[in-house]
Amino acid sequence: MLKTGERIDQLYASDIQIIQSKDVFSFSLDAVLLADFARVPRRGRVVDLCAGNGAVGLFVSKKTEAEIIGIELQEKLADMAQRSVQLNHLEHQVVMHNLDVAETFSVVPHDSADMVVCNPPYFKHLPANKTNPNDYLAVARHEIHTNLADILTISAGLLKMNGKLAMVHRPDRFLDILDEMRRVNVMPKRCRFVYPKKDREANILLIEGIKHGKQDGFKVLPPLVVYDEDNQYLPEVRKMLYGS
Amino acid sequence: MLKTGERIDQLYASDIQIIQSKDVFSFSLDAVLLADFARVPRRGRVVDLCAGNGAVGLFVSKKTEAEIIGIELQEKLADMAQRSVQLNHLEHQVVMHNLDVAETFSVVPHDSADMVVCNPPYFKHLPANKTNPNDYLAVARHEIHTNLADILTISAGLLKMNGKLAMVHRPDRFLDILDEMRRVNVMPKRCRFVYPKKDREANILLIEGIKHGKQDGFKVLPPLVVYDEDNQYLPEVRKMLYGS
Repeated sequence: MLKTGERIDQLYASDIQIIQSKDVFSFSLDAVLLADFARVPRRGRVVDLCAGNGAVGLFVSKKTEAEIIGIELQEKLADMAQRSVQLNHLEHQVVMHNLDVAETFSVVPHDSADMVVCNPPYFKHLPANKTNPNDYLAVARHEIHTNLADILTISAGLLKMNGKLAMVHRPDRFLDILDEMRRVNVMPKRCRFVYPKKDREANILLIEGIKHGKQDGFKVLPPLVVYDEDNQYLPEVRKMLYGS
Repeated sequence: MLKTGERIDQLYASDIQIIQSKDVFSFSLDAVLLADFARVPRRGRVVDLCAGNGAVGLFVSKKTEAEIIGIELQEKLADMAQRSVQLNHLEHQVVMHNLDVAETFSVVPHDSADMVVCNPPYFKHLPANKTNPNDYLAVARHEIHTNLADILTISAGLLKMNGKLAMVHRPDRFLDILDEMRRVNVMPKRCRFVYPKKDREANILLIEGIKHGKQDGFKVLPPLVVYDEDNQYLPEVRKMLYGS
């Protein structure tokens, strides 16, 4: 089941095993936070855009009976994701497609998704001379093959009326995110800021929007602080990772 | 010095005494939080719009040698503020004007302020039949005589290039605030969310914008949690209120 350089990591909280590779991409805390934040519908269809090695879709499978469709551009990642689906015996619920997100509508009809989850590339600009556009990590982290505006246009197209988008991103892109969500009529409704420690600036943003929702009642959920002073996970994060 | 129904409250952290009245308006934690959040210039001019009983302007006077100009529509409040200036012997630094914010330019020139601080009315709609438009508390809390858009237009007009606006408001108005700030070219740069307890949604928003700043580098400062599980102030807030 494993290829060279791969290992299996387990998210104990959801009893899900994920095939990982340091050379290609490993799921990070961001995926765990997004899966926790997303208010997944009980049934219907969930699309995981920029699915990577499938972590977010696999994690949320434990919260729902919905069909989960992952879309991932990079062949090695999509292949790892597909093998993780098998490893977890989730073939009846989770499907992974090796596709550019721009091609999503070739496998998922418009206006058919109850939820879109997305852990997109975060960084706007390629640091010059620093990243190779064919590098797996660079493509996962930088807006090389897609960008925020495209992802939101596609998300809005996939969602049913009142369907929900849940995304993880960086707080320094917050204004862009709010603007682009509203441009495609996915109204920002709830957000949660994640702070590495209680006295540090937020470094992760979780945000939910509702397709054709009203612009009112924006909520900022309780703060999520990851580490205590001794660099140990605080209880809420520990529970997401280890289940207790 | 005191009129009927009035009392003197002290902010121990800054050694400032404020004339208060429950019937008219009392400064609240919001004023203390705003004064703490505002990065007041050492010198120059600070304008306190919707100054109420003068609390924000008086609190920040301890952080700066800048001239502080308060603008307050309601006569009783402006009068209390003026007497608080005398009570604290700050006549050389702080001036209170009993004026509609729309008339601010009659006493402060355009493009002359290094900072604007504002604790505006928070609520968009008057609850029908619930508030009297002549009620002091209603005017201070509801957008009866002014509103967010007007306040931001005036703030932008007052500020020098690169001058800063610091405002306290409610998180449910966050999208409006970001839009209106950008409409008047005061770019949102830093915000801080205040949570009543660590497991509760944010109920206060502190936000700073810079006139003609760039739209990048938006920062979310460390979370400020007000109370612990036993409803006691947590150390950071206790220090703002009591100095230790």
